[in-house]
Amino acid sequence: MEKNRLEAFSDGVIAIIITIMVLELKTPFGNNPSVLNPLIPILLSYMLSFIHIGIYWNNHHHMFQVVKRVNGAVLWANLHLLFWLSLIPFVTGWMGENHFSKFPVALYGFILLMSALAYTILSHTLIKHHGKDSIIATAFGKDFKGKISLGLYISAVILAFVSPWISLSFYVIVAAIWIVPDRRIEKVL
Amino acid sequence: MEKNRLEAFSDGVIAIIITIMVLELKTPFGNNPSVLNPLIPILLSYMLSFIHIGIYWNNHHHMFQVVKRVNGAVLWANLHLLFWLSLIPFVTGWMGENHFSKFPVALYGFILLMSALAYTILSHTLIKHHGKDSIIATAFGKDFKGKISLGLYISAVILAFVSPWISLSFYVIVAAIWIVPDRRIEKVL
Amino acid sequence: MEKNRLEAFSDGVIAIIITIMVLELKTPFGNNPSVLNPLIPILLSYMLSFIHIGIYWNNHHHMFQVVKRVNGAVLWANLHLLFWLSLIPFVTGWMGENHFSKFPVALYGFILLMSALAYTILSHTLIKHHGKDSIIATAFGKDFKGKISLGLYISAVILAFVSPWISLSFYVIVAAIWIVPDRRIEKVL
Amino acid sequence: MEKNRLEAFSDGVIAIIITIMVLELKTPFGNNPSVLNPLIPILLSYMLSFIHIGIYWNNHHHMFQVVKRVNGAVLWANLHLLFWLSLIPFVTGWMGENHFSKFPVALYGFILLMSALAYTILSHTLIKHHGKDSIIATAFGKDFKGKISLGLYISAVILAFVSPWISLSFYVIVAAIWIVPDRRIEKVL
Repeated sequence: MEKNRLEAFSDGVIAIIITIMVLELKTPFGNNPSVLNPLIPILLSYMLSFIHIGIYWNNHHHMFQVVKRVNGAVLWANLHLLFWLSLIPFVTGWMGENHFSKFPVALYGFILLMSALAYTILSHTLIKHHGKDSIIATAFGKDFKGKISLGLYISAVILAFVSPWISLSFYVIVAAIWIVPDRRIEKVL
Repeated sequence: MEKNRLEAFSDGVIAIIITIMVLELKTPFGNNPSVLNPLIPILLSYMLSFIHIGIYWNNHHHMFQVVKRVNGAVLWANLHLLFWLSLIPFVTGWMGENHFSKFPVALYGFILLMSALAYTILSHTLIKHHGKDSIIATAFGKDFKGKISLGLYISAVILAFVSPWISLSFYVIVAAIWIVPDRRIEKVL
Repeated sequence: MEKNRLEAFSDGVIAIIITIMVLELKTPFGNNPSVLNPLIPILLSYMLSFIHIGIYWNNHHHMFQVVKRVNGAVLWANLHLLFWLSLIPFVTGWMGENHFSKFPVALYGFILLMSALAYTILSHTLIKHHGKDSIIATAFGKDFKGKISLGLYISAVILAFVSPWISLSFYVIVAAIWIVPDRRIEKVL
Repeated sequence: MEKNRLEAFSDGVIAIIITIMVLELKTPFGNNPSVLNPLIPILLSYMLSFIHIGIYWNNHHHMFQVVKRVNGAVLWANLHLLFWLSLIPFVTGWMGENHFSKFPVALYGFILLMSALAYTILSHTLIKHHGKDSIIATAFGKDFKGKISLGLYISAVILAFVSPWISLSFYVIVAAIWIVPDRRIEKVL
C-alpha cells in the first residue's frame, strides 16, 4: 500500500489540532491591555503545545521519508497516535485556564506520555513491517532520546503533585531534546 | 477524470470531522480531578466515533487504491457519504452529554446506518463505473461484512428502546468486524 | 506556475467550510426527540448549503482538470471565490435559526450570487490566461447555465421580500441545474 | 529532504486559519437587517485579515516553487511563521469587536509585524540552505518591499496611539504593495 494518503491525512489532522488550540484564546471584553492579562497563561500553554505538536509533525515527516510501504497495522498505529494528539488542545486549555495548577499539569503530562508511547508503537510497527535490516530500523537504533523522553514524562506526571513547575521544566527539556529534527534519519538519507 | 483530488478533499473533510469532535470536550471549571467526571461519557463516545471514522478512512483509503477513474456519479456518491459522516460529531456529542440514554443512542445508530448505506452506494457506483470484471468488483464480491453491519445497525436502532447498552455493544461489534482493514482489497492488490 | 498547490489549498478551505457549517447544529439539552425539533430548519439549510458547496467543489475540480498553468491573477480570483464561499456558513446558520424568514433568505441568496459571480470571474481569468482557442475557452462556450444561475439568484434576492419560499425554490432549482457536474468539460476531456 | 509535505502541512494550517476567522461572525439574534450592524466592523477586519493571509499564502506558494530542498532549520522557520499567523484570528476578532480602538489596532499590527519578521527569517533560512548564487537568493535580492513593510508595521503600531485610522491605512498600504504576487520569483522562473 502507498504511504502518500496516510501522510496527507496525518498532515490534515495535525494541522487542525495545532490550529484549533488557538480557539482557547477567546476574544476578551474591553479594549485596554489589562483584559489580556488572564490570557497570558493560556498563551504560554498554547506555545508549549504548539512546539510539542510541531516536533511530532517534524519527526513524523522525517520518519515517513524512509518508509517504503504501509499496512493495516501501520494505519491503526498512526490513528492511535493522532487520537492522543487530538486530546492535547483539551489539556492545553485546561492547564492554561487553571494557571498551571498541579492536577491539570499532571494530566497534560499524561497525554504527552501517551502520545510519546503511541509514537514509539508506530515506529516499532513500521520497523516490524520493513524488517530488522531496513533503513528505518538502523535509523532508530536504540531510540535513546525516545526512552529519556518517556522517563521524563513519567517523572513529570508524578512530580506535578510536588510542584507543577518541576513538571513544566521537564516538558520544556523534552521539547529542547527534540527541537532538532531526528538526526538519525537525516544521517541515513 | 483523475481520482487524486477526490482523495485529497475526502481526506480533508474526514480529518476535520475526526478532529472537531474533540471540541465537545469543553474545558471544565475548576482544577481538581472531580470536574472531569462529567466528561467521561463524552470521552467514551468520542473514542467510539473516532474508531468508526478511522475505519471509514482506512476503508476509503483501501478502496480508492483499486479505483482507476472517477465520474460525476462517484463525486456525488462520495459527497453523500461525507454528508452523513459530518453528522457524526453532532450525534456523538448528544449521546455523550445524555449518558447514553435511549433516544440519542438510537439516533447515533441511525447516522451510522446511513453512513454505512452511503458507503455501500459509493462502492456500487464505483463497481458500475469500472465494470463487473474489474478488480474492485472482484474485491467486493458479495460484501458479506457490509451486509452484516447494516443488519446490526438496524437492530441497534430498534433495540435502543429496549436497552441502549445492547445497541452500544452492537456498535462495538461492528467496529471489531472492520478494525482489520479490508482484506479483500489487500488480497487483490 | 504549477496548479497543484492552488488545488490543494482550495480543497482545504472548501473542506473546512463544508464541515464547520455542521457546528451550527448545537447539541440540544434534554434527551427526548422533541428537543431536536428546533434543529430541523437548521439541518435543512445545512443540507441546501452542503449541496451548493459540493457543486462548487465538483465544478472547481472539473475546471482545473483543463487548466494548464496559473498566475497571480488566477490566485486572487480563486481567493475571491473562497472569500464568498467562506461566508456561506454564517448566512446558512442565520437563515436556519430564523426559520427561513425573508431578510436572511435574501442575504443567503446574495452570498450565493456573489459566489457565482466570483466563479464566473475565476473562469474568465483562466480563459484569458489560456487564450481564446484553449480547451478551457471551448469548454465554457457561452456559459448558458452560468447566466441562468445568476438571473435566478438576482430574482431570488428580490422575491424573498414577496415570499421566501419562492427564493428557496429558486436555490433548489439552481442546485438541480448544476448537480450534474460540468458536462462541457467532460466532453472536451 | 523533500518539500512537498511542508507545503501540504502549511496549506492545511493556512487554510484553517483563513477559515476559522469567519467563526467570529456569530449568528445574531433576530431576523431584521439592523441586527447585522454590530457585525460590520467584524466583517471589515475579517476582510483585511483574509487579504493579508491570502498574500502570505500566495508568496509562500511562489517562494517554494524555487525551493529545491528543506532541512530542520527550514521546518522550524516555517512553523515559527505559522505560529504568528495562527494568532491573526484572535487579534482580528478583538479589533473588530472593539470597533478599531487604539490598543487592539496596535496589537493587530504587532502580530502582522511578527508574521512579516518570521517570513523574512524563513526566506533567509532558505537562502542560507540554497547558497548565495541560488535562484532563491537572486530572486530576493535586497528585499526592498519586505523592508518597507516592516517599517510601515512598526510605524503603525506606534501611531495607533495617535489615531488607529492611520495604522489601518498603513495595513491597507502594505496589502496593496503585496497584492501583486512576488514578481521577483515570476521573473526568475
